Amino acid sequence: MEQNKQIHLVSRPQGTPTSDNFKIVDAPMPQPQDGEVLVRALYLSVDPYMRGRMSDRKSYTPPFKLNETMGGANVGQVVESKFDGLKKGDIVMGHLLWQLYTVAPGKELLKVDPDRAPISTALGVLGMTGLTAYFGLLKLAEPKEGETVVVSGAAGAVGSVVGQIAKIKGCRVVGIAGTDEKNAYLRDELGFDATINYKTDDVPSALRDACPDGVDVYFDNVGGEISDAVLRLINHGARISICGQISLYNLEKPDEGPRPQPLLLTNSARMQGFIVSDFAADFAEGREQLTQWFGGGKLKYAENIVEGFENTPSAFLGLFEGDNTGKQLVKVSDPS
Amino acid sequence: MEQNKQIHLVSRPQGTPTSDNFKIVDAPMPQPQDGEVLVRALYLSVDPYMRGRMSDRKSYTPPFKLNETMGGANVGQVVESKFDGLKKGDIVMGHLLWQLYTVAPGKELLKVDPDRAPISTALGVLGMTGLTAYFGLLKLAEPKEGETVVVSGAAGAVGSVVGQIAKIKGCRVVGIAGTDEKNAYLRDELGFDATINYKTDDVPSALRDACPDGVDVYFDNVGGEISDAVLRLINHGARISICGQISLYNLEKPDEGPRPQPLLLTNSARMQGFIVSDFAADFAEGREQLTQWFGGGKLKYAENIVEGFENTPSAFLGLFEGDNTGKQLVKVSDPS
Repeated sequence: MEQNKQIHLVSRPQGTPTSDNFKIVDAPMPQPQDGEVLVRALYLSVDPYMRGRMSDRKSYTPPFKLNETMGGANVGQVVESKFDGLKKGDIVMGHLLWQLYTVAPGKELLKVDPDRAPISTALGVLGMTGLTAYFGLLKLAEPKEGETVVVSGAAGAVGSVVGQIAKIKGCRVVGIAGTDEKNAYLRDELGFDATINYKTDDVPSALRDACPDGVDVYFDNVGGEISDAVLRLINHGARISICGQISLYNLEKPDEGPRPQPLLLTNSARMQGFIVSDFAADFAEGREQLTQWFGGGKLKYAENIVEGFENTPSAFLGLFEGDNTGKQLVKVSDPS
Repeated sequence: MEQNKQIHLVSRPQGTPTSDNFKIVDAPMPQPQDGEVLVRALYLSVDPYMRGRMSDRKSYTPPFKLNETMGGANVGQVVESKFDGLKKGDIVMGHLLWQLYTVAPGKELLKVDPDRAPISTALGVLGMTGLTAYFGLLKLAEPKEGETVVVSGAAGAVGSVVGQIAKIKGCRVVGIAGTDEKNAYLRDELGFDATINYKTDDVPSALRDACPDGVDVYFDNVGGEISDAVLRLINHGARISICGQISLYNLEKPDEGPRPQPLLLTNSARMQGFIVSDFAADFAEGREQLTQWFGGGKLKYAENIVEGFENTPSAFLGLFEGDNTGKQLVKVSDPS
């Protein structure tokens, strides 16, 4: 059995994180007790929300501790099981952090069926990011047939699923992303009706062109000036889901801009923040619906896979450069 | 029969409105046709939302036209009726504008029962401002027993009702107003648990003291920096009703400040703008509940009454100086 390794947060970033904030350290091989399993990492998830947990301030999840392992969900394989519901060789998904081997209570792991979908999708389109898109769009923004839905961060893991679900619901879907390649993918592969390149287009005028009937739903992953421009076009009764604010995560001073309250007031519009765990009671329903759409060919996905455990920090840092189309993953190893 | 008079909007304000924006003009006495009634004004309503309609820009209601009568709801008395449901002498409430005599379709008027409550309350606690408080608080913010509810513009026509309904629902109620006299009234007469004077207190620290368990519901009538301070204290799952933004109505350039989206995101909080007409289908329910509370002594009200039709513009302008505790009205004449 190989050496265990962990990626520790060794300093808190000021502004944009750098590779100096992380350190790869050797660690003892953990031993499962009764009810626990030992899991070997296959895929690690790297997600924008982790940036918030690197700072020592109040957020919806507590900060990562210095000199401890950071990370989020992994897909892994059971190496040794002392839990009745799982056996050696099973593929599982769980909150297993950035480490090669993890011991976890068996009941906290979700068994992944490799015959139903590629196992990596349990971290993306059929995992937390898919569920984030599903609940944030359908439960909070309630899109109706024929409405215009705008998605920022549209080529990201969440945004690309949001747009496809909105198309399933019969909406006109406008995506905002940062490269022409991403936007071509959104239109040609995922069926978005229109796209905007926020780096090269004049966003306010491009939005007016793309949304001739105004904006009924805005699914916001980015915040900042892009959101300001979308909000100026909202219709009466618009619904805005605040899923992320990636443009702000690395700011060193508070974000200022036009306050949106006057636009919400004059349009009887609703803006709601959320975290996917708000809907934990309904995860099974969401997974089943996403899996059905996926199986029926209605839900495509993209993954941007970096190979090698030691490249996890750089894969994470790439999220803030817009490197990824779809879900950003780190592949640690193949299943045995 | 006396001369009819109207108050016209003769110029659009830049920034704060002045008396020069208005002109009192003689007008012909209107004649009712079949289905219509002639109404003599008794009380005129002056409301902050009218400021928005004085500007020539998109809002939830169309702008007032230049050189035409402006205004809103009145309570008046039927002088002549060609409508079966109303007879001479009846007291009615309707959208009758700032004029001494108005002809209106009888079916657009609400008959007011002078035995159930003072007739002026049909413009305030039992009228649109009461309904605004009722729906904006109960339908959008859904306060629960034991929660902390903060109200800005707390001594105004809407805010003073919001606070009392929140008390009926068993909440801790914190009001923000601009004079110690208003705040004493809110605490001593209306039962608010705590108050803040935004002109003399340090609002952020006073809010922290008044809301030791954070803020679950914020009913916002004012916007701007007061709202920024409240939002920094919201709890997970907080609900914010955007009813008005009086601090912004007279600004000549767009309002800027900290965008609230990050706070909504990290607290899974909801912010919703509204206009009372969004709930028109439920007005009868709301009026009945308000009238029951009023009759049972659970709902008190204050009125700030300026006498004389010609003083309508100055009563309106006083809203932006914080002159009023409770509903601002103009008394034109007594019923005959």
